[in-house]
Amino acid sequence: MKTTTPSSDFQITHDYKHVRFIPHDKIRISDSFFGKYQDLINDVVIPYQWEALNDRVEGAEPSYAIKNFRIAAGLEQGEFKGFVFQDSDLSKWLEAVGYSLSINPDPELKKTADQLIDLISKAQQPDGYLNTHFTVKEPDKKWTNLRDCHELYCAGHLIEAAVAYHNATGDTKILDVVCRLADHIDSTFGDEPGKKRGYPGHEEIELALIKLYRLTGEQRYLDLGKFFIDERGKKPLYFELEAEARGKVDHFRMWDHMGASYFQSHLPVREQAKAVGHAVRAVYLYSGMADVALETDDRELFEACKTLWNNITSRQMYVTGAIGSMEFGEAFSFDYDLPNDTVYAETCAAIGLVFFAQRMLQWETDRAYSDVLELVLYNTVLSGISLDGKRFFYVNPLEVWPEACDKNKTRSHVKVSRQPWFGCACCPPNIARLLMSVGSYMYSAKDNNINIHLYVNSQSVIELKDNAVTISQSTDYPWDGNITIEVNPEHEARFAISLRIPEWCKNAQIAINGESYGLEQMHKSGYIKIERKWKNGDTILLNLDMPIMRVKAHPNVRENIGKVAIKRGPLVYCAEAADNGKDLHTIILTKESVFEDCFEKDFLGGACVITSNVKRIDSKGWTGDLYSTDAKITSNPATIKLIPYYLWANREPGEMIVWMREE
Amino acid sequence: MKTTTPSSDFQITHDYKHVRFIPHDKIRISDSFFGKYQDLINDVVIPYQWEALNDRVEGAEPSYAIKNFRIAAGLEQGEFKGFVFQDSDLSKWLEAVGYSLSINPDPELKKTADQLIDLISKAQQPDGYLNTHFTVKEPDKKWTNLRDCHELYCAGHLIEAAVAYHNATGDTKILDVVCRLADHIDSTFGDEPGKKRGYPGHEEIELALIKLYRLTGEQRYLDLGKFFIDERGKKPLYFELEAEARGKVDHFRMWDHMGASYFQSHLPVREQAKAVGHAVRAVYLYSGMADVALETDDRELFEACKTLWNNITSRQMYVTGAIGSMEFGEAFSFDYDLPNDTVYAETCAAIGLVFFAQRMLQWETDRAYSDVLELVLYNTVLSGISLDGKRFFYVNPLEVWPEACDKNKTRSHVKVSRQPWFGCACCPPNIARLLMSVGSYMYSAKDNNINIHLYVNSQSVIELKDNAVTISQSTDYPWDGNITIEVNPEHEARFAISLRIPEWCKNAQIAINGESYGLEQMHKSGYIKIERKWKNGDTILLNLDMPIMRVKAHPNVRENIGKVAIKRGPLVYCAEAADNGKDLHTIILTKESVFEDCFEKDFLGGACVITSNVKRIDSKGWTGDLYSTDAKITSNPATIKLIPYYLWANREPGEMIVWMREE
Repeated sequence: MKTTTPSSDFQITHDYKHVRFIPHDKIRISDSFFGKYQDLINDVVIPYQWEALNDRVEGAEPSYAIKNFRIAAGLEQGEFKGFVFQDSDLSKWLEAVGYSLSINPDPELKKTADQLIDLISKAQQPDGYLNTHFTVKEPDKKWTNLRDCHELYCAGHLIEAAVAYHNATGDTKILDVVCRLADHIDSTFGDEPGKKRGYPGHEEIELALIKLYRLTGEQRYLDLGKFFIDERGKKPLYFELEAEARGKVDHFRMWDHMGASYFQSHLPVREQAKAVGHAVRAVYLYSGMADVALETDDRELFEACKTLWNNITSRQMYVTGAIGSMEFGEAFSFDYDLPNDTVYAETCAAIGLVFFAQRMLQWETDRAYSDVLELVLYNTVLSGISLDGKRFFYVNPLEVWPEACDKNKTRSHVKVSRQPWFGCACCPPNIARLLMSVGSYMYSAKDNNINIHLYVNSQSVIELKDNAVTISQSTDYPWDGNITIEVNPEHEARFAISLRIPEWCKNAQIAINGESYGLEQMHKSGYIKIERKWKNGDTILLNLDMPIMRVKAHPNVRENIGKVAIKRGPLVYCAEAADNGKDLHTIILTKESVFEDCFEKDFLGGACVITSNVKRIDSKGWTGDLYSTDAKITSNPATIKLIPYYLWANREPGEMIVWMREE
Repeated sequence: MKTTTPSSDFQITHDYKHVRFIPHDKIRISDSFFGKYQDLINDVVIPYQWEALNDRVEGAEPSYAIKNFRIAAGLEQGEFKGFVFQDSDLSKWLEAVGYSLSINPDPELKKTADQLIDLISKAQQPDGYLNTHFTVKEPDKKWTNLRDCHELYCAGHLIEAAVAYHNATGDTKILDVVCRLADHIDSTFGDEPGKKRGYPGHEEIELALIKLYRLTGEQRYLDLGKFFIDERGKKPLYFELEAEARGKVDHFRMWDHMGASYFQSHLPVREQAKAVGHAVRAVYLYSGMADVALETDDRELFEACKTLWNNITSRQMYVTGAIGSMEFGEAFSFDYDLPNDTVYAETCAAIGLVFFAQRMLQWETDRAYSDVLELVLYNTVLSGISLDGKRFFYVNPLEVWPEACDKNKTRSHVKVSRQPWFGCACCPPNIARLLMSVGSYMYSAKDNNINIHLYVNSQSVIELKDNAVTISQSTDYPWDGNITIEVNPEHEARFAISLRIPEWCKNAQIAINGESYGLEQMHKSGYIKIERKWKNGDTILLNLDMPIMRVKAHPNVRENIGKVAIKRGPLVYCAEAADNGKDLHTIILTKESVFEDCFEKDFLGGACVITSNVKRIDSKGWTGDLYSTDAKITSNPATIKLIPYYLWANREPGEMIVWMREE
């Protein structure tokens, strides 16, 4: 068994055409926004989820994840329980722990994680195979149902966890485990004779293999990732061949209804032009495609990614950055079909869209990607977790009518309150790993160029070709658009810093060391590149104007005709019953509605809220029956209070709307 | 085996407190509206459905109904196929044939029906039991799963068929069969020791038993119907007891999600205040409750019916008279939840609401019932059948976006085109039996009072206590509100004729023999009672003004806020893509929109269509992305054409909307 020699610096030292994102361990987030979330992940979510993985959370559905590993490792007797992809929850937790340890060393936590790694390694089979479901339950069925059984998906998550944990701790044990696993997969799959020409039903392994390649430098991991990407959707369909080989035609609901498009295997990936099928799978695939395109400098593959990106963001994305319009298949439906109440908008899909955006930004520093990354992060990702870190949304609706969620099955997947844990608990650990590593989405760099994508109160060290630049951001973002950026290069030198000017900001101002800096040079990408000789203490003042704005949807979005959403900076706002009573559909914004913002430091941990004068339909003033030709709809002046969307459902359960009628 | 002595006159000769409806065989409909539909039922639907029941319609799902009876009768070998309630399709067909023969004697058709009756009688078991599913497939499971297995439902439909066929032909064979069946049921169910205290999962037997009681005068049928009504919902729940007795807890989706309310067995019926669960079952139950209330003069039971009626019509009914807001469970959801696009609105539920309305009208001659009866009949019932009589809607949506029906599972139950037949073909024969007997909803009478509920070009003979009155209606209803009613009593006498003045008519005029008759005497029930000495040739001219009206929904109906529907007389109108292109959501009615009607004799068999000047949003004029703070929604003047709702989907498939935005 060959053990790779990990090099944590591989990712920025090898010859590479594209920018790299600065890893999150180079970034100290110290604000009261993401910093608070990271504290929450450290102090509450990681310990809580550890309890959940060990089936010790009262009132929550048991996970069985640890138990399954103990059984697979021969430490316990019993049956495998949970979903076929149950292993992945544990991996996502370990990945979050890796990100946590890299910025907050914690010997106790590391000890727990090391014990877990021991357990994982014991569950690995002599040939490198590692999956508790098949090891315990169906050892003779390994790799026979890639379409439904998530073996490659689970492997991918374990690889991601190993890379994160290794980067944080230098630990090689888990890295060895996943290299042996990856090598086993490599020996099983490929286009060489005797190998299976399969690919996963749930994509994830692709992007994970590229991470492993970047860490180890092993070309075969890149090749294997590329194989999975290129093989997908080729005719005859592997999923049909393997079903035949299993000697049966499976009755699988998704397959029956959506066919191969549920798995994005309806066409070779380069020919896919619309995002289809299960939304999480889709964006994980697209992220893997972009990774392979980056590492192999494959412009054709990148263009396929771009086409899919454009389809999502210009046709199939909610105003909150959420994706997935229908519950059935947790899937995309079709262009402009964006129902607010029967929505799916899974948290994991939003997280995958963040991944996809980050990779697209490596090809092109363009706010077309970073604006969406920010939008998704601040709205749908954060909406996925409660303020106390103990409850999670799977579905992130844009309109909630509690009675309908309770009594009309069409909306019963929409929950009015976040849930403590899920039988299918993909979202909670996914949020944890993303928020814990949120720093890694802030900066990209190459040669003598630094790009700043996100504005977060923080201190970072960015290694350039022949310099190391400490950048400190001081800001109250997202509540305020003033950002002070202090630049401290290791040695005075000429290099460029590009700042994202978000598309939502119609009025930005920059001053360098107190001197106004014209924005005429702003590139059409929405970034302004400041190239100069930088010396210690140089300071950029960036002011992003954050007025409250009415957002309209394209008139092809039927749901939102005659309605507006309210945004301020990167944040989408919503109205909740807790502030506005029920019957939120009676709110009508008028031309005279004026919006005022106010930071309320004691409101849900501190937030900028918005008030406005509106009209409210007076339901009690209706004099007719259910239908009437005479009765008038009357309205009264009223005041409403809007709160950031991501904060909804942190008080008593009730109605919520994002899109409000406008007169 | 006792054979009852049928008396076709029983229904109007026995001492009875309430009005009776005049049976349809006393009424000759001769107009180009319902008359045309009846011709279609005779000439196309009945023969077509006979082919369907015999599995001879190409491209349609096989019915197996006849085949099942042949197997049960021992005439053929094979397995039972189709739904557990497959027998009922055949009964509904036979019922329609009965109604047809009573007004259009047809020896060939009668021969076919008689042969079918022979077949049915051969399938009956020596003890009177009759159900092909259990006889063929599970003979040892009879009456063990009333909740799911529809034995009593099928029995009810056969009883209804027998009553109709006997009334039409005097045939006693089928009547004997159902009396033996009813006696068998009576010996099986009841509150006497040794009998099962069960009741049907799908109600229907109740109203059928009352029909049989009215025909035969046999008190035990009334008692048995009343037993089923009174037993329902008592604790402990029979459905739970029988499930235990079967030795298993069934995994039944509806039960899991809605519990007993799916079957309206969550409470004793007298305590039920809201319509819940499967909509067809609900209105069949309520009809049976009203029947029992009428026959036993049970005011408490009637009041329960009225409460349920009011809940439906003031909270849970679509503007087209349709009921059932969700696909899951084909069910009611809750007050004011009336989605237009994810709607269910089953044709059979509409038919059941017609039954319910008719029975309520026997307690109270009030347009609260007859207006709804008319609304449902002219809109949702007729929408269920295509103009050629060969295709049927199960679901009658108020808004259709074909791409969504195709690609978003939330709406995949909504079909863009009527279907040739269904595996679960409850609706097609139900439409046939209703339209064939539509005359029986026109008049009710008692003592010396005649009530006219529907206006249809027709000639009728109404038997009063000591007179027989021939009433001829001449009208182009529903296209025109002028109705000439000629009254020809057998002998000159004093009696009363009450005319319904529909609530939608704000300006009605009456003249008798050319002399204006004041409407001051109109009762709050919406009926005007004209009591006088009538002689041959007396003529009432009734003019119901039929302006085109904008209808608004109660502001609690979220779906319809800011929207209006268009009605003219009893007809709801809709916009179809065939006339207006796609993107119907871009239509905006303004204050200046003027509506004009025009009868187009060549349009879909002749119909009054409506045109109006509106605004259409210019989607192409949108300059923004998917979301924008700058782009404007612009619109252009446009003309739209609206057609009666019931005529939709008779041309190329496309979008359709009932509710249109209003500025």
